[in-house]
Amino acid sequence: LTNERIKTIATLGPRGTYSEKAARQLDMSARIVFCRNIPDVVEAVLAGKEDVAVVPIENSLEGSVNVTLDLLRENKLSVIGEINVHVVHCLVMKGKKEDVTMIYSHSQALAQCRKYLRENFPNAQIYETTSTADAANKASLAKHIAAIASKEAANEYGLKIFAKNIQDVNENYTRFIVIGKNIPEPTGNDKTSIIVYPKENKFGALYEILGVFAKRGIDLTKVESRTTKKALGDYLFHIDLNGHVKDKIVAAALEELREIVQMLKILGSYPKA
Amino acid sequence: LTNERIKTIATLGPRGTYSEKAARQLDMSARIVFCRNIPDVVEAVLAGKEDVAVVPIENSLEGSVNVTLDLLRENKLSVIGEINVHVVHCLVMKGKKEDVTMIYSHSQALAQCRKYLRENFPNAQIYETTSTADAANKASLAKHIAAIASKEAANEYGLKIFAKNIQDVNENYTRFIVIGKNIPEPTGNDKTSIIVYPKENKFGALYEILGVFAKRGIDLTKVESRTTKKALGDYLFHIDLNGHVKDKIVAAALEELREIVQMLKILGSYPKA
Repeated sequence: LTNERIKTIATLGPRGTYSEKAARQLDMSARIVFCRNIPDVVEAVLAGKEDVAVVPIENSLEGSVNVTLDLLRENKLSVIGEINVHVVHCLVMKGKKEDVTMIYSHSQALAQCRKYLRENFPNAQIYETTSTADAANKASLAKHIAAIASKEAANEYGLKIFAKNIQDVNENYTRFIVIGKNIPEPTGNDKTSIIVYPKENKFGALYEILGVFAKRGIDLTKVESRTTKKALGDYLFHIDLNGHVKDKIVAAALEELREIVQMLKILGSYPKA
Repeated sequence: LTNERIKTIATLGPRGTYSEKAARQLDMSARIVFCRNIPDVVEAVLAGKEDVAVVPIENSLEGSVNVTLDLLRENKLSVIGEINVHVVHCLVMKGKKEDVTMIYSHSQALAQCRKYLRENFPNAQIYETTSTADAANKASLAKHIAAIASKEAANEYGLKIFAKNIQDVNENYTRFIVIGKNIPEPTGNDKTSIIVYPKENKFGALYEILGVFAKRGIDLTKVESRTTKKALGDYLFHIDLNGHVKDKIVAAALEELREIVQMLKILGSYPKA
């Protein structure tokens, strides 16, 4: 990803999260530093404590991870890579099914297994945790608690796998981004991420924005509206496009775009996953 | 909203939710029927048990309510109205601040008060409940549990208001939609909601879709990409536009749109909030 070797990777802990899996996919030899929540992961890189951060941004079932989108908007940072991780959720527990009165997991994992939980544990109380691994940790402390987590987390916390692949549909991938300092050089197969806030908050403005890319044949791989937090109906747009900021055609498009919008933030260019 | 009187409204319970507030804003005289979760609220109308359903779709701080977007896609139903509710979150409890080790609330309310919780209760365990009122109910049972909920919920469950207006920014509105059977007649100040799935899943297709409205001067009030749940990067679009399906210009646009997309679902037309 970069010319310099990555020595440390900040990611969401504790041990056994899908974030850890993504970090290991990025670099097997780097030391992984676990943080309590996603804002702390990003802060570790902003404060210069760790080399890069790996955070989830999007899941194929649940959609965007809002806290990550907001952190990208609010902080000065660069996206330098992306990693796709195959998610296979398991229901894990210490005791027997009959003992279970509470189910713990991360909000996205709970949402991804909504149907399974409704059909198999209609009376269980559902509680949100900061990560799937944290849920597994809690389940290891009491027989009446089950967790939705990965098989790696079950191993890590000594839990039995009661059911495997319990998400609503089988194709379940989470896309992680790598946050760092220096934008990598073009590889010929890159993606660029930007945030755009139109001059007038009308969707006619979005049409004009997309036109800047369409007329140059630049493919967009994502367009996501996100609340500015100022008012209902006030949006900015997260856009991913094919190409590198150093490609002439992309540079020209971004230059034209800057003229017609109120705010353009270039998050970075990086090799496609 | 409709010519027929609304006798019953299904909404998210228990008593004291913001959903109840929205339902009362819609019709003070209707009987409110409380359901356990958002899918059950929608099901109550689909099964013909209640006249209309009131469900949250979007918040000015947290963005879309994904489960509602997915239910609109998956079921045959009509959006017949919208209601905006001003959200003022309070931290409510039975005992004293020192007693509090756990904080309960709905996932969106927890997300909206992220900063307050981090600064004031950095060590509290955070748990998700199905509604803010459910959290208040749980807080009424134990001194070590605090809840994020409305002042109405605090009254309902006999709790003290420890802090008021604790959301990250002051402007906090939730938009609710009304789900029913018959699309209301045009009033001259209407909105139409549709879901579009492009033929090719490229964002050049989104440009073409927006062009159908732009060239007719039809304003879009929302464009939201949402995962199809099939794969990463496979999206459909929720679009809200100014006008009624019975307006000639809107009807012509939708007719042209149907030719260029794989799927067009017209959710309904209704008076603006």
